[in-house]
Amino acid sequence: MSSEFGKILKVSVFGQSHGKAIGVNIDGLPAGESIDLEELQRFLDRRRPGKSPLSTARNEGDVPEFLSGLENGKTCGSPLCAVIRNSDQHSKDYAELADKPRPGHADYTAWVKWKGHADMRGGGHFSGRLTAPLCIAGGIAKQILARRGVCVGAHLDSVGTVCDEHFPLFPTRELFEEIAAKPFPALDDASGARMQDVILAAKNVLDSVGGVIECAAIGLPAGLGDPMFDGVENRLAAALFGIPAVKGVEFGAGFNAAARRGSENNDPFTVENGRIAAVSNNAGGILGGITTGMPLTLRVAVKPTASIAKEQQTVSLSKLEDAQLQIHGRHDPCIAHRAVPVVEAVTATVLLDLLLEGNHGTF
Amino acid sequence: MSSEFGKILKVSVFGQSHGKAIGVNIDGLPAGESIDLEELQRFLDRRRPGKSPLSTARNEGDVPEFLSGLENGKTCGSPLCAVIRNSDQHSKDYAELADKPRPGHADYTAWVKWKGHADMRGGGHFSGRLTAPLCIAGGIAKQILARRGVCVGAHLDSVGTVCDEHFPLFPTRELFEEIAAKPFPALDDASGARMQDVILAAKNVLDSVGGVIECAAIGLPAGLGDPMFDGVENRLAAALFGIPAVKGVEFGAGFNAAARRGSENNDPFTVENGRIAAVSNNAGGILGGITTGMPLTLRVAVKPTASIAKEQQTVSLSKLEDAQLQIHGRHDPCIAHRAVPVVEAVTATVLLDLLLEGNHGTF
Amino acid sequence: MSSEFGKILKVSVFGQSHGKAIGVNIDGLPAGESIDLEELQRFLDRRRPGKSPLSTARNEGDVPEFLSGLENGKTCGSPLCAVIRNSDQHSKDYAELADKPRPGHADYTAWVKWKGHADMRGGGHFSGRLTAPLCIAGGIAKQILARRGVCVGAHLDSVGTVCDEHFPLFPTRELFEEIAAKPFPALDDASGARMQDVILAAKNVLDSVGGVIECAAIGLPAGLGDPMFDGVENRLAAALFGIPAVKGVEFGAGFNAAARRGSENNDPFTVENGRIAAVSNNAGGILGGITTGMPLTLRVAVKPTASIAKEQQTVSLSKLEDAQLQIHGRHDPCIAHRAVPVVEAVTATVLLDLLLEGNHGTF
Amino acid sequence: MSSEFGKILKVSVFGQSHGKAIGVNIDGLPAGESIDLEELQRFLDRRRPGKSPLSTARNEGDVPEFLSGLENGKTCGSPLCAVIRNSDQHSKDYAELADKPRPGHADYTAWVKWKGHADMRGGGHFSGRLTAPLCIAGGIAKQILARRGVCVGAHLDSVGTVCDEHFPLFPTRELFEEIAAKPFPALDDASGARMQDVILAAKNVLDSVGGVIECAAIGLPAGLGDPMFDGVENRLAAALFGIPAVKGVEFGAGFNAAARRGSENNDPFTVENGRIAAVSNNAGGILGGITTGMPLTLRVAVKPTASIAKEQQTVSLSKLEDAQLQIHGRHDPCIAHRAVPVVEAVTATVLLDLLLEGNHGTF
Repeated sequence: MSSEFGKILKVSVFGQSHGKAIGVNIDGLPAGESIDLEELQRFLDRRRPGKSPLSTARNEGDVPEFLSGLENGKTCGSPLCAVIRNSDQHSKDYAELADKPRPGHADYTAWVKWKGHADMRGGGHFSGRLTAPLCIAGGIAKQILARRGVCVGAHLDSVGTVCDEHFPLFPTRELFEEIAAKPFPALDDASGARMQDVILAAKNVLDSVGGVIECAAIGLPAGLGDPMFDGVENRLAAALFGIPAVKGVEFGAGFNAAARRGSENNDPFTVENGRIAAVSNNAGGILGGITTGMPLTLRVAVKPTASIAKEQQTVSLSKLEDAQLQIHGRHDPCIAHRAVPVVEAVTATVLLDLLLEGNHGTF
Repeated sequence: MSSEFGKILKVSVFGQSHGKAIGVNIDGLPAGESIDLEELQRFLDRRRPGKSPLSTARNEGDVPEFLSGLENGKTCGSPLCAVIRNSDQHSKDYAELADKPRPGHADYTAWVKWKGHADMRGGGHFSGRLTAPLCIAGGIAKQILARRGVCVGAHLDSVGTVCDEHFPLFPTRELFEEIAAKPFPALDDASGARMQDVILAAKNVLDSVGGVIECAAIGLPAGLGDPMFDGVENRLAAALFGIPAVKGVEFGAGFNAAARRGSENNDPFTVENGRIAAVSNNAGGILGGITTGMPLTLRVAVKPTASIAKEQQTVSLSKLEDAQLQIHGRHDPCIAHRAVPVVEAVTATVLLDLLLEGNHGTF
Repeated sequence: MSSEFGKILKVSVFGQSHGKAIGVNIDGLPAGESIDLEELQRFLDRRRPGKSPLSTARNEGDVPEFLSGLENGKTCGSPLCAVIRNSDQHSKDYAELADKPRPGHADYTAWVKWKGHADMRGGGHFSGRLTAPLCIAGGIAKQILARRGVCVGAHLDSVGTVCDEHFPLFPTRELFEEIAAKPFPALDDASGARMQDVILAAKNVLDSVGGVIECAAIGLPAGLGDPMFDGVENRLAAALFGIPAVKGVEFGAGFNAAARRGSENNDPFTVENGRIAAVSNNAGGILGGITTGMPLTLRVAVKPTASIAKEQQTVSLSKLEDAQLQIHGRHDPCIAHRAVPVVEAVTATVLLDLLLEGNHGTF
Repeated sequence: MSSEFGKILKVSVFGQSHGKAIGVNIDGLPAGESIDLEELQRFLDRRRPGKSPLSTARNEGDVPEFLSGLENGKTCGSPLCAVIRNSDQHSKDYAELADKPRPGHADYTAWVKWKGHADMRGGGHFSGRLTAPLCIAGGIAKQILARRGVCVGAHLDSVGTVCDEHFPLFPTRELFEEIAAKPFPALDDASGARMQDVILAAKNVLDSVGGVIECAAIGLPAGLGDPMFDGVENRLAAALFGIPAVKGVEFGAGFNAAARRGSENNDPFTVENGRIAAVSNNAGGILGGITTGMPLTLRVAVKPTASIAKEQQTVSLSKLEDAQLQIHGRHDPCIAHRAVPVVEAVTATVLLDLLLEGNHGTF
C-alpha cells in the first residue's frame, strides 16, 4: 500500500468509498499561503457528480473539513489534513460483488492482495471517489502555483472516437479558466456536444465509454526536473497512473512522435524577445526530463468505466466457477469528463513539488 | 539529479558518453544468484551498435567489468557495481554543439540546469549510451526472474507507420527467445523488412524515424503492486520514462481503451483448470495497480533520434540569436529497434524489485 | 516538513497542539488484523497527562476516531487514518510567546523556517501532544507484533541522576506487561519513588528535569535490517529522534562500549538448545545493522521539559533585543516518564515495518 | 541492502574489503564545483592506516580513480563515481572465519541474511575499509561547503576512559584545520598522548579499545531541517549509524541533558550585533529538528574493534557447537581515531544534502 506521492510535497490519500470518510494529508506545503476556500470548492465541484445525466446520481457534498495545517485561511507549515465525510451510500448494492469480482475493476486483485479483508463497498479505496481528496491537494497547489504565474489547465481531448481540438501552441490562463467554467470541458463546444451524445448513447445501452484528457501547464521556468529517473515525465507519470482508470500517459507528441521523422518531430529553437523558445512543442516542454520553458503538455488515457449495468461474465470466488454478473447501483457512463480536474490536480501537485525542490543543478 | 530507480532493488546509473566510463551500481540484489556472464553479454549485444547500416558506426565493445557484488559467478549480497570503459569516441564532432543546442536533444536543458558546466560530449549523461548500464542491470534481473518462471520479452511494434503484429494473448518464453535471436526484433519478418526499409529511407535523406516497442512479462503472480501511487503501472512508467527518447507509456489497451466501450474493454473473468484467468487482456495484466496473474503488457513510444544530419534551425547560446546547425558525427537513424532490449531490461528490473518486495497485503 | 517515517509501513503525523485535531495516517498496514480498541486505549492512556501531580493538568481525553482503514475491528488494507479532536486548550497562555521564543523550544526555529506563519500555540506541531498519534500507530503495531511473538517494552532508566535497574539479559513479555501496569514505569519501585521525588522537587522550584528511557524488543528473528544505511539502528534512530525532546540514542552498551575493551564488549556466541545465541548482549541485538536474534535494546535521552515557569532570558523578535520571559500555562515538570510508551510505540512501528519488508537477503 | 543515504544528494557505497575494488557513486552534486584532488587526498590520508603502530599494518594506497562526474577538475552535474582498487590483501587469514563468526562482528548476521553467500573476506562489505569511499564523498562535500562558509571538524573526545577537552562554544575553521593537521586528532595533546598509551596498552594484550568522537559544524544558516522525522538530527543519525562500529549518537548535551534541569539545559537567547544567538549550546545547534544558527555539535560512540587477537568463544556454524576462535590477520587496536575524518565526512555529506534542499518553509 502506498497511497502517497511526492518528494518535498507529500500527498497521502486515505479512505474507502463507503467508509466513514475520505481525505488527504499534505506534508510539505509552504507556510503563509492564503487558500481561498470558495475557489477551492468551485474546483472540487468540477469533479462532483450528481449534476447531470452524464454522471452517477450519487449526490456527494464533498465539502472538506480542515483538521490541521490551515489557520485563519493560511497554511501554517505543518501538515494539512482535510477530510470529507461520506454520505448517500447504498452499500447493499455491493453485497453480490463480494463474491463476483467486476471485470475491469480492482475487486479481484484486491481480493487476492488482502485475502478478502478489503472493504470493497463502492470500490473501497480504489473508488473514483478517492479523486476528491486528490482534488483538494491539487486545488490548493493550483492556487499556490497561480500566485507564481504557473497555471495548469485541461480539457477532454476525446470521448470514444469523437475528438476535441488540441490546445494551441501557447495556451493562456484565460483559456484554462474558460474551459473550467464550462458545464462540459471541451475546447470546441460542438465537439463537446457530440461527446455528450456518445456518453448518453453508451448509458442508454447500459454501457460506458472512455476518453482522453489533454493537460497543459504554462509559466514553468526552464531547468526543472532531473535526469534520468527523477525527471518531470517520470514524476508526473508515476502520479498520473495513480488516478483510477488511467491506462496511458504521453508527453508532447507522445505516441504520434513514434510515427514521425526527426526533422518533423524536433522543435527548432529560436530567440524571441531575447529569450530562447521553440517554434513547435512536440517535446511537450520537456527535453531530457527537464523543462524547456515551453508549455508542458501531456495526454492521459482513461478507460471506460468498468462498472456497467450490462450483464457480464465473471467468476464466483467461493464456488470457483464461471458466473454471470448484473451490476446494480449508480455508476458513471463515462468518468473521463469528471477526471479532467483530477488530471489538473495531480499535475499541479507534482509541479508544485518540483518548484519547491527547485533547480539545484548548481549551488 | 537522480539517475536511480527502485525501492528494494536500487539501480543507479552513472557516466557520460565520452567520459572515462559508464556503469551501474545495483543495491539490493539477492545473494547466491548465479549470473551467466555469456548470456548477459549476448543480451548486451542486442543493443550494441555498429552491427548494421541501421545503427551508428560507433563500435562499442560494451564488455562490463564487475568491481563488486559478484564473486565466483554468484551475487554475494553487497552492491554490484559494473563498469564499461568508453572508447572509440570522436569528441571533436561535438565542439560546435557546445554553443548550438541540438533541437529535440537535452543540450539546451542541460545548459540551463548546469549553467554550462555539463559534459555534453556525445550527449553526456543523456546519451543513449547510458542504456548499456541499464541493460547490465536488466540482464541480471532477467536471469534471476527466469529462474522463478518470470520471463520478459519485447519486440518492435512499429517504425514510422509500419506496424508489426502484436503479442498473442499468452506469449511464451520460446517466443521471447525467438525474437531475441533475430537480427531485427519483429514478430513478423515481412513487417520487419518493411520497418528496416523505413529506417534506411530516413537515413538516406539524413533524417531519422521513431517507433513503438511492445513488451510483455509472463509468470507473474497475482497480487503484486500497491494502490494508488505504488502500483505496477506507476513504478514501471516512472522507470520507463528514464529511457532516453521515450515520450509515451501505456498498459494493455492503453490509449485504445479510451476509444472503447466498457463492454468491449472489460476482460471477463473465467475459471481455467481451477485457476481464475481472463478471456482477454485489455488490462495488460494490471487492475487497480495490482497484477492479475495474466501477462503484463505495455507499449512504449520512442521518438525519432534527435540527432539528424539534415541542417536544422537552432540558436547560438553565446550570441543569443538564431543559427543554423549541421550535426556531424555518427548517429542512429532509428533507436527504437536498439531500445527493445532496453525496455525489457527496465521492465525486468522493476518486476524483480516488485517480487523482492513481495505481497505484504496480509502478514 | 516531513512528519512521516517508514518504508513499507508509512506513518504520517498531523495536527497542531491547539488546532482542530491531531491524528495519524498509517499507510501499509497488513489487512485482516484485529485491533483491540480497548487495549489500544489502555496503551494511549499510559502517555495521557492529567493523572497525577507529575504531569500537566491539561486533561486530554485522547480517544481516537477511526476515519478509514479499520472495518468491523479489522484492518482492511487501505490507509488507516485516526483523529483525536483537541479540547481543553488555553491558547491565551501563548500570546506572549509569539514574540518571545522559549529557550530550548522550537519557537525560534519555527519562526525562522515559516517566517512567523507557524501556528505555535501550545507548541503547535512541535508539541509533545503529537506523540499521541504516534502512540496510536505504535499501539496498533504492538498488537500486530505480539501476535507474531514480538514484544516491545520500555521503562524509565533514569531521571536526573537517579537510576533504575536495567533490563535483564532476556526480558520477558510478562515483565513488559508488569511495567506497563505500574502507575510509574520503573523496574525497581524504590528507584521509581526516588525518581518521582526528583520530578516533584524540580516542579516545586518551577523547574523541570530530564530522563533516559530503556526500550527492548524480544522475539525478533535474526537477519532483519540491511547494511549500511538501511540497518535496524539507522531506521530506529531516524524515527526515535522524531520524538520531541530526544537528544540521544544508543543501542546495546552504546556510549559505555566506547569506554571498554573489545574482550569485554564482544558478545561470545554459544549454542543453546541447538540455536545460536550470545552469552551477553552489548550489541543490543544488532551486528552490522542486522538483528542477531538476541533481544534488541536501546536507550533514549530525553532532555528536561523546555517550558519551565522559572523566569528565563530570551529575546523579543519584534524589538530584536534581549527580554525576560515568564512562561504561564500548564507544563510537565518531566516528560520522560510519559515518553516511555512513546518510545515503545516508535520502536514497535519501525520493527513492524522491518518485519513487513522481511529478509530478502536471498530470494 | 541499502548502502545509500541522502535525499537530494545520494551517496551509494559499494565494494567488499577483499573484492576487486571499493567505491562510491554520488548522485546530485551541484555542477561547476572545483574539486582540489590534492586536498581531497590529504583528507583521505587522515583515515588511511599503516601510518603508525596505532593502526593495522595493512597498507592501502587509497587513491581514487574518478570514472564520471568530474571533468577538468570540476563537477559536471552527472553522477560522480570514484573507485579505489583493492590491494595488499591477505585473504587466507580469513579462511577459518567462514565457519567461526567473530564475536562483535557482522559475520554471523551476514551469514544468516545471505545464507552463506556473502563475501566476508576482510569483513566484506561490512569492513571499516568501506569508510574510504564515504570519505571521498565527504571530502568533496567539505570542499563545497567550505566555499559557502560552512566548516566541519571533529576530534577524538575519548578513548577508553581517557577524555579530551570538548570543543569551545564557538569552534573556528582554524581550530578544525589545526586538529586535521595533527598526527593524532586530540584537542589537548597531553590527553592525546594518554589516549595513545591506552590504545597501545590494549594492543599489547592482544585487545582493542573504543572511543568517542565529537564533531561540530559552523556557518550553518538557521532554518535547515524539517520536523518531525526529516530533521537534522534524524538525518544525521540515520547516516552516522551507517559507519561501522558506531553504537550511539547524541546531539548537544545529549545524554547529559537527561540528567539536568531545564533551567540548566535551556540555552537562553540573546541579541549579538543585531543577530539572535544563544549564550550556551546544549541544543547542539538544533531545536525541533531545525538548525538554530549556532554551531551544530554531535558525539558518536565507537565500540572497540571487534577483531582482537585474544582467543574468544564463538560457535562453529557447520558443527553447530561452541568453538574457540583465534583471529589472525592485521587489525586496528582502535578505530576511533581513524573514524574521526569519517564522522566529519558523513556529517558534511548530510549537511550539504540539507543545504542543497534548502529551506522551503515558505515559497
